[in-house]
Amino acid sequence: MIKVGIIGVGTVGTSVVNILKDNADVISARAGQDIVVKSGVVKNLSKDRGIDITLTDNVDDILNDPEIDIVVELMGGVEEPFEIVKRALKSGKAVVTANKALLAYHRYELQSLANDIAFEYEASVAGGIPIINALRDGLSANHIESIMGIMNGTCNYMLTKMANEGVSYDAILKEAQELGYAESDPTFDVGGFDAAHKLLILASIAYGIDAKPEDILIEGIENVTSDDIAFAKEFGYAIKLLGIAKKDGNEVELRVHACLISKDKMIAKIDGVMNGISVVGDKVGETLYYGPGAGGDATASAVVANIIDIARSGKSRPMLGFDKPLEGKLTLKATQDINSKYYIRINVSDRTGVLAKITKVFEENNISVETMLQRPATAASANLLFSTHIALEKDIQNMIKSIEALEFVNMTPVMIRIV
Amino acid sequence: MIKVGIIGVGTVGTSVVNILKDNADVISARAGQDIVVKSGVVKNLSKDRGIDITLTDNVDDILNDPEIDIVVELMGGVEEPFEIVKRALKSGKAVVTANKALLAYHRYELQSLANDIAFEYEASVAGGIPIINALRDGLSANHIESIMGIMNGTCNYMLTKMANEGVSYDAILKEAQELGYAESDPTFDVGGFDAAHKLLILASIAYGIDAKPEDILIEGIENVTSDDIAFAKEFGYAIKLLGIAKKDGNEVELRVHACLISKDKMIAKIDGVMNGISVVGDKVGETLYYGPGAGGDATASAVVANIIDIARSGKSRPMLGFDKPLEGKLTLKATQDINSKYYIRINVSDRTGVLAKITKVFEENNISVETMLQRPATAASANLLFSTHIALEKDIQNMIKSIEALEFVNMTPVMIRIV
Repeated sequence: MIKVGIIGVGTVGTSVVNILKDNADVISARAGQDIVVKSGVVKNLSKDRGIDITLTDNVDDILNDPEIDIVVELMGGVEEPFEIVKRALKSGKAVVTANKALLAYHRYELQSLANDIAFEYEASVAGGIPIINALRDGLSANHIESIMGIMNGTCNYMLTKMANEGVSYDAILKEAQELGYAESDPTFDVGGFDAAHKLLILASIAYGIDAKPEDILIEGIENVTSDDIAFAKEFGYAIKLLGIAKKDGNEVELRVHACLISKDKMIAKIDGVMNGISVVGDKVGETLYYGPGAGGDATASAVVANIIDIARSGKSRPMLGFDKPLEGKLTLKATQDINSKYYIRINVSDRTGVLAKITKVFEENNISVETMLQRPATAASANLLFSTHIALEKDIQNMIKSIEALEFVNMTPVMIRIV
Repeated sequence: MIKVGIIGVGTVGTSVVNILKDNADVISARAGQDIVVKSGVVKNLSKDRGIDITLTDNVDDILNDPEIDIVVELMGGVEEPFEIVKRALKSGKAVVTANKALLAYHRYELQSLANDIAFEYEASVAGGIPIINALRDGLSANHIESIMGIMNGTCNYMLTKMANEGVSYDAILKEAQELGYAESDPTFDVGGFDAAHKLLILASIAYGIDAKPEDILIEGIENVTSDDIAFAKEFGYAIKLLGIAKKDGNEVELRVHACLISKDKMIAKIDGVMNGISVVGDKVGETLYYGPGAGGDATASAVVANIIDIARSGKSRPMLGFDKPLEGKLTLKATQDINSKYYIRINVSDRTGVLAKITKVFEENNISVETMLQRPATAASANLLFSTHIALEKDIQNMIKSIEALEFVNMTPVMIRIV
């Protein structure tokens, strides 16, 4: 029998306890033995969680309990769980975590500390979708060419609603908060940081890249407006917040930002709170994984799958998929060197000669326009909507600065990269 | 170093050799050791395959070679590979196969023979999509409620073309044959048998159901016409050939047939030769897996992933996911007890009273109509298109027999189940 201790018995932890009980029949058959939760650590002992495990508010009761084989870390945060997980590994206990922030910062230290002890983290990326499993084991024969994922359900819900119902960003954010899809401080989701944590984990499995959130390009969806959505629709695009990892020679691009993506692509068809991750391997081509990226039971489904795997096989592979360098030196590409097509929206005062002056700035920065649309915004202003051919990020950034400085330009131009 | 012998070096076998060579860097890092193909068995030794491994036409050269750790079976067929694979297991060699027909008939005997020896078969279902991996390991915490999959790229290519371009079944079959997507005898694909083999494998992992192709409902796409596609479009459906496994109490439905499925569902959005499998778990909800279901490199990607896994972990779990019964006695539901909504097309001579007589037969068989459309077919005949509320398969079959016998009905009515 395998005994589990859970540190942090909130929504996901309660679901883990319930799944191990509700589905004990299939879980025992698949694990080859019974799995029980012995105890859980909570901050508030007086709160009724409707589960019948022993609760404590002292983490030592789990870390020092010789009967506990697997520690499940569901407390959130970075440094505090890092210390706790290190202690668990040092005492020889296997670890399962759903904590993407912990891994975004400390995954390489954890891999090296784990050594021969099982350390699993399926729930840390895209909740119930077994994407770690797919990328690390299912696609292991491939050099990964790219990963493109809708990894944040809150943003996808908001963008889908904006596209389908024409609601404004502010109105839909308010609705998402009321529905519990967005936090009262929504920055972590709508600013792209949540997706970035997940992207960094996947990039380590695919490329062995040890980057931290502050090393990569992270933008959110705060500046996407109904005008942009309307342009996207008209030209056959959807707007999605994507986490993108892409190999280009010996460099890897890692970036999170809103994207215009052709409606024909499978990933553009993923709507609402659902997540989906497209992975292109050099041999297999494109595969895509779709499902719920959040929610207690869906996330706990992944946590319990890891527990079953450890009960059945112990440590069967290195945490991040390999323990010596994966392939020839891959380095992180500098943000300014990224190549992309771009969509640019510029709000201008509506007078003669404006278009000529703007297109001159495009030309001075080596940016070639593919399509252009002008739409009235107010009585005295217009929106100029451009899509470009492939251009360099640094040229686009310079161009935007120059355009913003023009006296007839009313606000910072909006730029969305086209995939 | 792990040494591999390949039995059957055709398109997939050649890709396996090439991937192990082309991607040796990542493969060694992930497997923790080098993997080489020592030899391959072919029927025709004089054919140049453009690969530099030792070839033989005698299977004993691999089976009796003590240096070979893993036998990869890619020869196709059922009884001949069964004998060969049994010999490999008896001599202690791990086995990897892409052979769905072998598994559709002999998976339980193979699981029991394999015992402590690794036996893997990721490539047998949906080619490059790691669906075995996802279902057996990634979703192991769940009771599986249903599996619905587009598991045959040929049929999906044909149905997509018929829907998008209005081409007839016969014209598109000819085109698919010219493109190499369909065999000169296409029955195995368009008759649903290929999909059925794959469904049986997934059903064993999900439910522990030991069924053979002859035990389950298998229909193909041969009777789908442009009229049906047009009706489907008009009412917001796509037509797909689906393999369906569904738990209903203590019974499991297994069936392969064309389906009308709402265009909003992710699986309805999978077009062309691509495969996609939706799995609903009681805890995780719906997850979906999309990718190439065929092709040398895509299939070999799955074969090599299995080889890497065996090199890294040996036998880490039972072949079909569990070695004692999975849960309370699940039995196969009889075909006649299936519940579904149905679409029925009846071609009738265009005269007075026909509709009344037909709807009377519906009523006599307890079948309630949800929508009805009449369309002229020729000058003297019309198509009557019905969709029903939930009905029993046996009632529908009886109704179709009665309707077919009516003297003004010109051909056997077409029936397509609605998902």
